[in-house]
Amino acid sequence: MSYNLLKGKRGIIFGALDENSIAWKTAERVHEEGGVFVLTNAPIAMRMGQINQLAEKTNSEIVPADATNLEDLENLVERSMEILGGKIDFVLHSIGMSVNVRKGKHYTDQNYDWTHKGWDVSAGSFHKTMQVLYQKDAMNEWGSIVALTYMAAQRVFPDYNDMADNKAYLESIARSFGYFFGKDKKVRVNTISQSPTPTTAGQGVKGFDGFIAYAEKMSPLGNATAEDCANYTIAMFSDLTKRVTLQNLYNDGGFSNMGVSDAVMDAFVKNQ
Amino acid sequence: MSYNLLKGKRGIIFGALDENSIAWKTAERVHEEGGVFVLTNAPIAMRMGQINQLAEKTNSEIVPADATNLEDLENLVERSMEILGGKIDFVLHSIGMSVNVRKGKHYTDQNYDWTHKGWDVSAGSFHKTMQVLYQKDAMNEWGSIVALTYMAAQRVFPDYNDMADNKAYLESIARSFGYFFGKDKKVRVNTISQSPTPTTAGQGVKGFDGFIAYAEKMSPLGNATAEDCANYTIAMFSDLTKRVTLQNLYNDGGFSNMGVSDAVMDAFVKNQ
Amino acid sequence: MSYNLLKGKRGIIFGALDENSIAWKTAERVHEEGGVFVLTNAPIAMRMGQINQLAEKTNSEIVPADATNLEDLENLVERSMEILGGKIDFVLHSIGMSVNVRKGKHYTDQNYDWTHKGWDVSAGSFHKTMQVLYQKDAMNEWGSIVALTYMAAQRVFPDYNDMADNKAYLESIARSFGYFFGKDKKVRVNTISQSPTPTTAGQGVKGFDGFIAYAEKMSPLGNATAEDCANYTIAMFSDLTKRVTLQNLYNDGGFSNMGVSDAVMDAFVKNQ
Amino acid sequence: MSYNLLKGKRGIIFGALDENSIAWKTAERVHEEGGVFVLTNAPIAMRMGQINQLAEKTNSEIVPADATNLEDLENLVERSMEILGGKIDFVLHSIGMSVNVRKGKHYTDQNYDWTHKGWDVSAGSFHKTMQVLYQKDAMNEWGSIVALTYMAAQRVFPDYNDMADNKAYLESIARSFGYFFGKDKKVRVNTISQSPTPTTAGQGVKGFDGFIAYAEKMSPLGNATAEDCANYTIAMFSDLTKRVTLQNLYNDGGFSNMGVSDAVMDAFVKNQ
Repeated sequence: MSYNLLKGKRGIIFGALDENSIAWKTAERVHEEGGVFVLTNAPIAMRMGQINQLAEKTNSEIVPADATNLEDLENLVERSMEILGGKIDFVLHSIGMSVNVRKGKHYTDQNYDWTHKGWDVSAGSFHKTMQVLYQKDAMNEWGSIVALTYMAAQRVFPDYNDMADNKAYLESIARSFGYFFGKDKKVRVNTISQSPTPTTAGQGVKGFDGFIAYAEKMSPLGNATAEDCANYTIAMFSDLTKRVTLQNLYNDGGFSNMGVSDAVMDAFVKNQ
Repeated sequence: MSYNLLKGKRGIIFGALDENSIAWKTAERVHEEGGVFVLTNAPIAMRMGQINQLAEKTNSEIVPADATNLEDLENLVERSMEILGGKIDFVLHSIGMSVNVRKGKHYTDQNYDWTHKGWDVSAGSFHKTMQVLYQKDAMNEWGSIVALTYMAAQRVFPDYNDMADNKAYLESIARSFGYFFGKDKKVRVNTISQSPTPTTAGQGVKGFDGFIAYAEKMSPLGNATAEDCANYTIAMFSDLTKRVTLQNLYNDGGFSNMGVSDAVMDAFVKNQ
Repeated sequence: MSYNLLKGKRGIIFGALDENSIAWKTAERVHEEGGVFVLTNAPIAMRMGQINQLAEKTNSEIVPADATNLEDLENLVERSMEILGGKIDFVLHSIGMSVNVRKGKHYTDQNYDWTHKGWDVSAGSFHKTMQVLYQKDAMNEWGSIVALTYMAAQRVFPDYNDMADNKAYLESIARSFGYFFGKDKKVRVNTISQSPTPTTAGQGVKGFDGFIAYAEKMSPLGNATAEDCANYTIAMFSDLTKRVTLQNLYNDGGFSNMGVSDAVMDAFVKNQ
Repeated sequence: MSYNLLKGKRGIIFGALDENSIAWKTAERVHEEGGVFVLTNAPIAMRMGQINQLAEKTNSEIVPADATNLEDLENLVERSMEILGGKIDFVLHSIGMSVNVRKGKHYTDQNYDWTHKGWDVSAGSFHKTMQVLYQKDAMNEWGSIVALTYMAAQRVFPDYNDMADNKAYLESIARSFGYFFGKDKKVRVNTISQSPTPTTAGQGVKGFDGFIAYAEKMSPLGNATAEDCANYTIAMFSDLTKRVTLQNLYNDGGFSNMGVSDAVMDAFVKNQ
């Protein structure tokens, strides 16, 4: 589908790794909707991914940046405005990583250097990105900034480990910075809290397949896919949602407001 | 603006009274986006309003219905499918009324017959509408039902009186019925919690102007207008938000996540 | 245990039916803590219950009242002050009933006369009780009013039916009336949202045993018992919580903030 | 008042600086209720404070510890069990500090080394404390851990700066670690979200007096004092709340559920 919802809008998309990435799907959909953008990812992630294919397909340039590094972010923002020919209208932050998860450290046995690293990459990067955009006055009025998050910020999912706390910090940044960005620049800042999604990153989490199945059965409309998330993000970038800000928006087939579904209860009772 | 977001979609819009109504603005925007619909309102409200102008402008038919009356609702749903030539894709419920407010009864001195009447009109009508749609299997898959609400359902606004409780009940219906509508019919149900809006109904509330000014200063992006609400509703009716359900979505310039703004604090301190 | 936490305090306890009732356990604990009180229940409920035993055991008088009837409530409040020798310090509202549930009507097929009846008994009674207490100026300063509720007010539990909506309305009343009771009389109003509890009333709900087991496995500390609820209520009636008001307090072993537990996921995965 | 609620219970209290500290008042109240404890604070904070007076008054020993340093925490926990003669029943975490606030850096112009420092002190310290307690199996069953927090974790208070994000991370830790502490050790973990309180630390925040006045007028019962917080913490340490866990509990005179009060609106309107 295409509605020209983002015609004339310029943006920056963080975090497209491969075609399973939500950021990848979002880039494709933004392109279909007439938006132009710069793609960015950490140099190390770019080596592993196929971001060049995406750039070609969407007629975009790539500007590598370590999103925890202020100089890289400054360069990214300046280069993006040059490449796109003006200020920025939309930004997607889709970055998250826990070293404790990767290395198999349990939540009750953290390596705190790794905790720090994961916090900086997953949450700190969002503040830094906004601080650079804000200080350079790089966003157009009624621009829209979206970060992806997960409901572990509100509720316990035992295997999500320190990413839960990182996402809580990220969502708080969205509110805290969103206030100043709204008041001073008329820019909105929101997070989208997505169903568990079988991205390459997500698949690294222990027991992820079982959890996907559980969430599917708990959600009255089933899990939201990466495509669904791309579409919701389009809506949030478009002029249809100009006064929605500081919100955490669930795109999850209804999971977040479920206590229990008939399907989950049936599976549970059978097994008792 | 027009993106053809609702091309081929059929709907029912409750509650357009006059051009200040959110439902009125929504009807205009739905029409621009290519959706077709039936307008409905209570016979008594229709006599006061100018709904015929809206019908003409949007090329729509009007089917009067008392939304607390099951026979009226059954007739409305059947007639709508006949008129529009198929099942329904979207429904807007924009109905609310407190007799206690109208008659100046304080929240601590309710007339309980009036409390019952307001509850039935403001919240019960939403359940009845969905029950009729559900039992008649009148909604298309991936259809979208939206009801308008207000943050008094979560937080105290002293003059909002028993409408606060009615909105809490309404939002609960959205979750409770949304579960069955999602699971059984793939239909999503959400509420939009809108900034205070100077509609003809809103203006009847005591101290409404002061409150509008307060909300404007509290919200980093200012109050969402009726047009903003119409646009957000379009997004929720469109295929961009297919897996968003059971949610209460704030369209309020950020008010809902504010503790205090600099502007409100400045006004407060000056007056101390 | 006994700490004399309620020495010198007078109250009214609604809803003790039999020894499985949370209100029954609460009355016993209040008695142990030195509080004195009047017991009340609907005449019809009293015929089924053993409330006389409880009255004897706790040295209390019983004043029957239909909690939806203002005259009954006025008599109850006046008689209570006479019997207890002064104004009221604490009130427990533990009343809930859905005719739709009792008669097996599905949520999508409500009988709306029954919906009205359940709403009036389960939620309206709370407003009426507070309105009578407020208008008669019957509460002491720093008094405490508690109503029992359930998390279905926030999240979907399919078999909870229209009680979910009634509890949402009840919790809204706690906030709305709590504001005026706090400001005008220095009285706090809160709700306690309790784990599913095998009371005589609870056991009538379809699939209740399976649900109890599910909640037990989801909650890191297991389900809160009726005794736990009585103890929490004591804390809320005591002077330890004087400035806690308008809150909905979960007494649920942690369920409310769980996404999924290892125990539930294990049961789910085995059965896939 | 004294009810012997904590007779036989042993604990650790972090963060008593001077007699304005909430931790100081809590230590006094715990002592009155029969609990015994070790006091701890950072060496640097201890030089500024009068903690020796408190130790004398409550017959407690002091074990200095930098709560971001694992070795210090390990020593603290081991020494506490030796001094108190057994495992720990209660812990109060009352630690928070933002270098950005202290040095006057605006939220949109953070020094990220300072952000890191504040995050580690204010939130990381809570994880580290629990990790040491958990790994040493130092808590008794049905023990209770409480951390103090502030509503800036949920809503925007512009001058609260990066402490808002730190408190959001802290509250997430309470849920994440609370799950494992509950399931594995039957220990509950909660946060108390307190009214703005004129502690020595709080008074350093810009515009604090105006904000205290605003919160006082917004809250139907007025601001909760440090004494109120101490009392609520006693309730959370006692056996009255054994199955309350993973919760964030507002002790704020009702502020958290207010949209606007009559008193704030009056002040606002007069000044327009």
